[in-house]
Amino acid sequence: MSDKGYLLKESDLLPLSIGAALLGTGGGGNPYVGMLRARELIRKGAEVRVLPLDALPDDAWIGEVGGIGAPVVGVEKIEEGGECYRAMRAVEETAGVKLSATISAEIGGSNALEPVIAAAYAGLPVIDGDGMGRAFPEVQMTTFFIYGAKAAPAAIADEKGNVVVFKEVIDMFWLETFARGVSVNMGAAAGLAIAPMSMEFVRRTAVPGTVTQALSIGHTVLEARQKRQNVVERVVASTGGKLFFTGKVTDVRRELVGGFARGHAHISGVGDWAGSEARIAIQNENLVLWVDEVPVIMVPDLIINLELDTGEPITTEVLRYGQRIAVIGLPVHELMKTPKALEIVGPKAFGYPELTFNPLQPQPVVA
Amino acid sequence: MSDKGYLLKESDLLPLSIGAALLGTGGGGNPYVGMLRARELIRKGAEVRVLPLDALPDDAWIGEVGGIGAPVVGVEKIEEGGECYRAMRAVEETAGVKLSATISAEIGGSNALEPVIAAAYAGLPVIDGDGMGRAFPEVQMTTFFIYGAKAAPAAIADEKGNVVVFKEVIDMFWLETFARGVSVNMGAAAGLAIAPMSMEFVRRTAVPGTVTQALSIGHTVLEARQKRQNVVERVVASTGGKLFFTGKVTDVRRELVGGFARGHAHISGVGDWAGSEARIAIQNENLVLWVDEVPVIMVPDLIINLELDTGEPITTEVLRYGQRIAVIGLPVHELMKTPKALEIVGPKAFGYPELTFNPLQPQPVVA
Repeated sequence: MSDKGYLLKESDLLPLSIGAALLGTGGGGNPYVGMLRARELIRKGAEVRVLPLDALPDDAWIGEVGGIGAPVVGVEKIEEGGECYRAMRAVEETAGVKLSATISAEIGGSNALEPVIAAAYAGLPVIDGDGMGRAFPEVQMTTFFIYGAKAAPAAIADEKGNVVVFKEVIDMFWLETFARGVSVNMGAAAGLAIAPMSMEFVRRTAVPGTVTQALSIGHTVLEARQKRQNVVERVVASTGGKLFFTGKVTDVRRELVGGFARGHAHISGVGDWAGSEARIAIQNENLVLWVDEVPVIMVPDLIINLELDTGEPITTEVLRYGQRIAVIGLPVHELMKTPKALEIVGPKAFGYPELTFNPLQPQPVVA
Repeated sequence: MSDKGYLLKESDLLPLSIGAALLGTGGGGNPYVGMLRARELIRKGAEVRVLPLDALPDDAWIGEVGGIGAPVVGVEKIEEGGECYRAMRAVEETAGVKLSATISAEIGGSNALEPVIAAAYAGLPVIDGDGMGRAFPEVQMTTFFIYGAKAAPAAIADEKGNVVVFKEVIDMFWLETFARGVSVNMGAAAGLAIAPMSMEFVRRTAVPGTVTQALSIGHTVLEARQKRQNVVERVVASTGGKLFFTGKVTDVRRELVGGFARGHAHISGVGDWAGSEARIAIQNENLVLWVDEVPVIMVPDLIINLELDTGEPITTEVLRYGQRIAVIGLPVHELMKTPKALEIVGPKAFGYPELTFNPLQPQPVVA
């Protein structure tokens, strides 16, 4: 057992939400409302401790929670706040266990804040890690499920008081099917809690340190803004990422299909990329970047769009004609690149049979 | 406490399924497969007793079960058999009660057999009554829900082993929404069990004696066939029903929309109705009969189509061009005709705001 982590301060929540938005790779939902909600709970006295992966004993039970729905809807239909908490309690009751901490399904986007909010309601700590190291559109696309987490009992709750328990589910794909369907009935925004996982399992399978990583990215962005530095350059340098394109959005096609926002964005190059054309495929998140029809970044690696001038992360639901953006690539964690993981989150899993995953090479990190 | 009912014999199952098909008013699913399954269980030694409404004490818990899905699908996707039983067990566990008997959500169609099958699996009796006295397309359209049954906990199970529990549901309409959605994900055929009801409540709200009624109708049909009598005439005389039209089906329009089979059938008169045209509106069941554009029977009263020559009940999923049919009207039970009930199962609830329910008058019953 090592150190006992750190308490989340009120002043951490804005940088956490900025870092989370960036790691959302265009999706994961806007974390702003969740940030306000977490702030309110912390102002009222809730204490949420961020625990490193080695802080709890092997047999402690950890609860993974996250919002489920379409980010496009999440912008207009604001959650009540207790959705994930109520789902988590239903799972505890059904499984007959007591949770010791929460963990994020995905650090990218609003789901960075959901386990913080659920933890604040429950008086629990939150584990410094998550199941994606980014954002992904489907429930089964976590390291937890990829490496064998149980699909049941899981539960979903809405803001109206409905709670549905997936008591016996034959696999994670069925969980995704059922949870997606119920979330659409719930208005395409709901809280999902999956089956309790042992700390021993979470230690082996979580993408480690991602709460701290999001915080650190957020601090970098805020500091760069304050010092009037180039935010895009600072983010690239401090994360080990690489700038892949700068350009102006010329077209965005986006549809809400079965609870997902799917589509494409077209970008005309500016600066070093003048004369080039880029295209990004979207399913809630950015999936593939092509530059002049050559695929240069693809899932599970991270494709991050920042506003060129301000460095503000641009989520796919606000992406629009005329925006000037920088497209950054960031290598995903190793746990997401194994053959087993690529079956679930590689380009083929997202409907690109012609693409073979070609991982980004990590760049030197400049503090 | 009165008598203790009667044991269902193997030889009762065919007449029960014939009577149930007839009371299905065109919907409720074909009871034939359920009949075979119940027969197999009874041949293997299962004993299912049919108990009158006054046989059990007030505080006994009764479990209402039924299949949920589209009858059109039910013809091709055959249930495994234990769906309702597994859903019922999940409800028992979640509610923390032990059931004393099962009861049918709807006596019409395949759901006449589902509580018999669940009872055979569980070693329980089945109550002589149901929640509709006919068939209806939606979960909330039972006397139980109309008169205040709790919407949760309910559960749904499929043939693959998935079990979803509706743990907290704000009302019966949300239960219908969630259960319908999950049943569609499950392949549009699943078993649903609703929250346990006290025997005291069931005694006040069930449509009484409908298992026995279905059996009796089935026996009438079989006897008439054996004696080469006119089956349509015998059914009309023995049920207190009335013949409203005879004709040839000239057109059937049917679509599968959101898990329901919706449409219209057109019939050209023959015999006493030569020169007249009839139309029947369908949502799984027959909803309204118009003769020469005048509405003559409407929900919740029963509209029953029988093959003119054989008296075979014709369900909406097998209704087709060229069939010669007799259309019989049967008054529904009083519990389905109160203002409260008509809000849920009257013509307006089915999308006919121009129709005011005009109840059929009971005809003298000829044994």
